Amino acid sequence: MALNPNYEQIGKGFVQQYYGLFDGDRSTRTNLVNFYSETKSLMTFEGQQIMGRVKIMEKLQGLTFTNIQHSISAVDAQPTFDGGVLVMVLGQLKTDEDPPHTFNQVFVLKPLGDSFYIEHDIFRLAFHV
Amino acid sequence: MALNPNYEQIGKGFVQQYYGLFDGDRSTRTNLVNFYSETKSLMTFEGQQIMGRVKIMEKLQGLTFTNIQHSISAVDAQPTFDGGVLVMVLGQLKTDEDPPHTFNQVFVLKPLGDSFYIEHDIFRLAFHV
Repeated sequence: MALNPNYEQIGKGFVQQYYGLFDGDRSTRTNLVNFYSETKSLMTFEGQQIMGRVKIMEKLQGLTFTNIQHSISAVDAQPTFDGGVLVMVLGQLKTDEDPPHTFNQVFVLKPLGDSFYIEHDIFRLAFHV
Repeated sequence: MALNPNYEQIGKGFVQQYYGLFDGDRSTRTNLVNFYSETKSLMTFEGQQIMGRVKIMEKLQGLTFTNIQHSISAVDAQPTFDGGVLVMVLGQLKTDEDPPHTFNQVFVLKPLGDSFYIEHDIFRLAFHV
């Protein structure tokens, strides 16, 4: 498989879709499960390593906030040599009444049929040292 | 090829080596060329897309500062399913007399003989919006 020439569009479309579901209500967020694979998805969430869609969704659904809003500052996408897309996201998130926090998230998307799944997902809040 | 069980050590060792060379003098920085491939290395530097070791080194050597110092706050590594390592770095950098800036950098390292080269490199300064 070769470089996908639509990597930019795929990366930006994914980001819009992913955070759109994330920022919805609890039942909308449930649909994030469709982005992950049980055997091929790795997540590192604030240093905690999680594998597989079931445990990843447990983590995401267990986060203790009622409302969340992501604002995206930058999305950088690169095509990978096996037809996937590497995406780096920089933004701010705001939960409930907390002040906004800068966050960084990286995804590696891999093709699956007509769509893509998340093979790698790394999330970090950027606290200012 | 399968998941490399040493991904954590590879990622952290790489980060130490890479920024160690970067923070040296101009001639030390020249050695960064050895991490990149002419045909298989993609860099996105503050949104600018660059391909191949020659152009990547032109970019890095053309940055206008005399001294630079990276301080690393977090390194997250994941093994990729083709024997590589995905690395996300969060830190601060200080050039000359400028105030420190938060930066984010992502690398995908791929095996090459006994070592690794950088297939993907995305760099962003995190300006606070």
